[in-house]
Amino acid sequence: MALDTKPYKGARDFYPADKQLQNYIFGIWREVAASYGYQEYDAPIIEPLDIYAAKTSQEIVNEQTYSFEDRGGRKVTLRPEMTPTVSRMVAAKRQELALPLRWYSIPNLWRYERPQRGRLREHWQLNVDLFGIAGIEADHEIIAIADAIMQRFGAKRDMYVIRLNSRQLTNYILQDFIGLNSEQSAATIRLIDRIHKIPADELKAALNDIAADKTDQLLNIFKAHSYDALPEDIKNHKIAQHLHKLEMMLARGGITNTKFDVTLMRGFDYYTDIVFEVFDTNPENSRAIFGGGRYDGLVGAFGVEPLPTIGFGLGDVTLHDFLQTHNLLPTIKQPVDLCVITIGDVYLEAQKLLTDLRSDGLKVVVDSTGRKIDKQLKSADKAGFEWILFVGEQELASGDYKLKHLPSGKEQSLGLGEIAKTIKTS
Amino acid sequence: MALDTKPYKGARDFYPADKQLQNYIFGIWREVAASYGYQEYDAPIIEPLDIYAAKTSQEIVNEQTYSFEDRGGRKVTLRPEMTPTVSRMVAAKRQELALPLRWYSIPNLWRYERPQRGRLREHWQLNVDLFGIAGIEADHEIIAIADAIMQRFGAKRDMYVIRLNSRQLTNYILQDFIGLNSEQSAATIRLIDRIHKIPADELKAALNDIAADKTDQLLNIFKAHSYDALPEDIKNHKIAQHLHKLEMMLARGGITNTKFDVTLMRGFDYYTDIVFEVFDTNPENSRAIFGGGRYDGLVGAFGVEPLPTIGFGLGDVTLHDFLQTHNLLPTIKQPVDLCVITIGDVYLEAQKLLTDLRSDGLKVVVDSTGRKIDKQLKSADKAGFEWILFVGEQELASGDYKLKHLPSGKEQSLGLGEIAKTIKTS
Repeated sequence: MALDTKPYKGARDFYPADKQLQNYIFGIWREVAASYGYQEYDAPIIEPLDIYAAKTSQEIVNEQTYSFEDRGGRKVTLRPEMTPTVSRMVAAKRQELALPLRWYSIPNLWRYERPQRGRLREHWQLNVDLFGIAGIEADHEIIAIADAIMQRFGAKRDMYVIRLNSRQLTNYILQDFIGLNSEQSAATIRLIDRIHKIPADELKAALNDIAADKTDQLLNIFKAHSYDALPEDIKNHKIAQHLHKLEMMLARGGITNTKFDVTLMRGFDYYTDIVFEVFDTNPENSRAIFGGGRYDGLVGAFGVEPLPTIGFGLGDVTLHDFLQTHNLLPTIKQPVDLCVITIGDVYLEAQKLLTDLRSDGLKVVVDSTGRKIDKQLKSADKAGFEWILFVGEQELASGDYKLKHLPSGKEQSLGLGEIAKTIKTS
Repeated sequence: MALDTKPYKGARDFYPADKQLQNYIFGIWREVAASYGYQEYDAPIIEPLDIYAAKTSQEIVNEQTYSFEDRGGRKVTLRPEMTPTVSRMVAAKRQELALPLRWYSIPNLWRYERPQRGRLREHWQLNVDLFGIAGIEADHEIIAIADAIMQRFGAKRDMYVIRLNSRQLTNYILQDFIGLNSEQSAATIRLIDRIHKIPADELKAALNDIAADKTDQLLNIFKAHSYDALPEDIKNHKIAQHLHKLEMMLARGGITNTKFDVTLMRGFDYYTDIVFEVFDTNPENSRAIFGGGRYDGLVGAFGVEPLPTIGFGLGDVTLHDFLQTHNLLPTIKQPVDLCVITIGDVYLEAQKLLTDLRSDGLKVVVDSTGRKIDKQLKSADKAGFEWILFVGEQELASGDYKLKHLPSGKEQSLGLGEIAKTIKTS
């Protein structure tokens, strides 16, 4: 029986045009991260399962990991996220590494979820992390990088909003300001973590179940999407003031599309303070594109002195959806510069010419099928090659080659030295 | 209890310097493959187990795969090699794709083996494949690319040898020329697949067990490492002549370090004809670096019309050992161009300058710790940064900045427009 040609469910094959688009995305990620002095690292896709048990959400560990026992009986998993891995690596060289560390990586991550728009079983995720700076400057730098990436892809300020919150602020509001007990507070947090996914009346009913006398007060605070709209006592809290200062710092660099959102939770248990999320403003794709936050305790979970850390993870699937929604995807062009069509049996004689063209920086294929010229031309056209060079014994002897531009049909006779220049400056 | 900081056994963490070296290797792989008009593709690291059952060696499938059942009961594995995957992808679009296809990929591959020099449980492997050309030109092109990569890394002709053989030639020699029966022939093939790993006397004893009266004749043929040294009847066989012609074609382009080796088998069951292997000549690392061959039947195993195919796979672990053995590894340099040291509380005021420096193409970090200048300088030195820019209120007001080159201690006063140029041309 013939084998199935489909890729594994929820995962993607990248044909050349798909991979070119991915390389465009990776290229911008690398360029922006490097311009801020961040250095790339990587690690194995297999990790011991127990590094997730401590701080990653229970839902991910129990229901979504690709876990198995290896042939030596070790309990391992395909990493569902990179944060525990990079914390492990930093902890392993905690004493040797010169702080602060500015690191990035583009790992492939796996979660067993029901495939849907913006969510597959695997994605590639840019991880950017800054280790060793506890101050607001680190929060500012990380969010500035997230924003610089969006800008570099051509996004306008009105296409996305950067929501800001702190776990500590939400705890203060629920427990101290509103006066919920710890059980009510935990139930409310679980609820508001899904606030953008449930209808308003359902939210209200659920809040009523938790603490009927506080529902209106809670709903009012949830709706306050700016520092100024918050009650005075919350505004005076030091974390609220920190977030407000951060907003002003970002605005000074032109990043004006931020928003206070005390309902922003992010799913991971390791966040200790500020969290942020870049959200698509288009109603057709109204969802978080990516986010991050501060996790000052995770490196310390590996038995070394803790290290203040803030970072974010940006996945290629949600980013692609955003770029598509806003018409920001680039046109993918055939990458081969030149197709050499051979006239007669000159494959071997043409090798030196091919080497010279490649040395001139051209990406060159040669049709070595020995077919008639019109068949070779037809294949070249079907493959999408724009430039054709005709090479036979006569051309090799004279050093004059006919270069044809297929889209325009224009032909010209050129020496070797002029071919690369003509193609590159066209 | 604290979590362990070690990576999974037999797999590697890539700290920034390691990753830079890997990116250097990947960069040359991409550059050479692209210059021959090859296009990059990719696919999920998880594949259905059954695509390996057919044609990959039984040893790999039964003893070395990372196989498990996913949460939906599917039998899957981390890919141990890329050839079945790329064959699956080509088969899935057999009718739409414009032939020939020139494709490459750099997948991460996993095998459960005992970790040792040159062999880990994972590696990254350049796969280069040419689909749709049955003629000798395809054999020539693929080996020429393999050679161009070695040359691009700085390898000299005497550092490696390219062994050539064909499965069909070995079958002819063992069965028709020597006259072994199919059982003896199969036993001999299993033996010569390990010929470089077993001592001469052990080889002779094992051959004696298979067919005592043929041992000397076999050993003589195994020792014939050129076309001319083979018996006349073998030389006249069409496959031997094909290989001989291929050697002459390669030699014409300067690839003179080839060798006939009728003992070259390669481990995979899918090879149908020519196989080749690039072998390190250094006695300290005397082993195959990488290899490939023709596998005309694998695309057809996915239920579509078969397609002539030849390709190779080059892993980063064996290549790294080769480059190290021959002193061909590059010096890894700190990638950050400039570290900005702030004098006083000017982090926010300096942002525009930082943006401008990054726009000029510099990779710039800023020390935002607010520490004293000498502490900042010490950190910069420990991190390996070469260039330091001092920025305080006075500098921002005047537009004159002090640029210091740490290795030489040299300082100069420059305007914004001169900083990038000075660093880049140093």
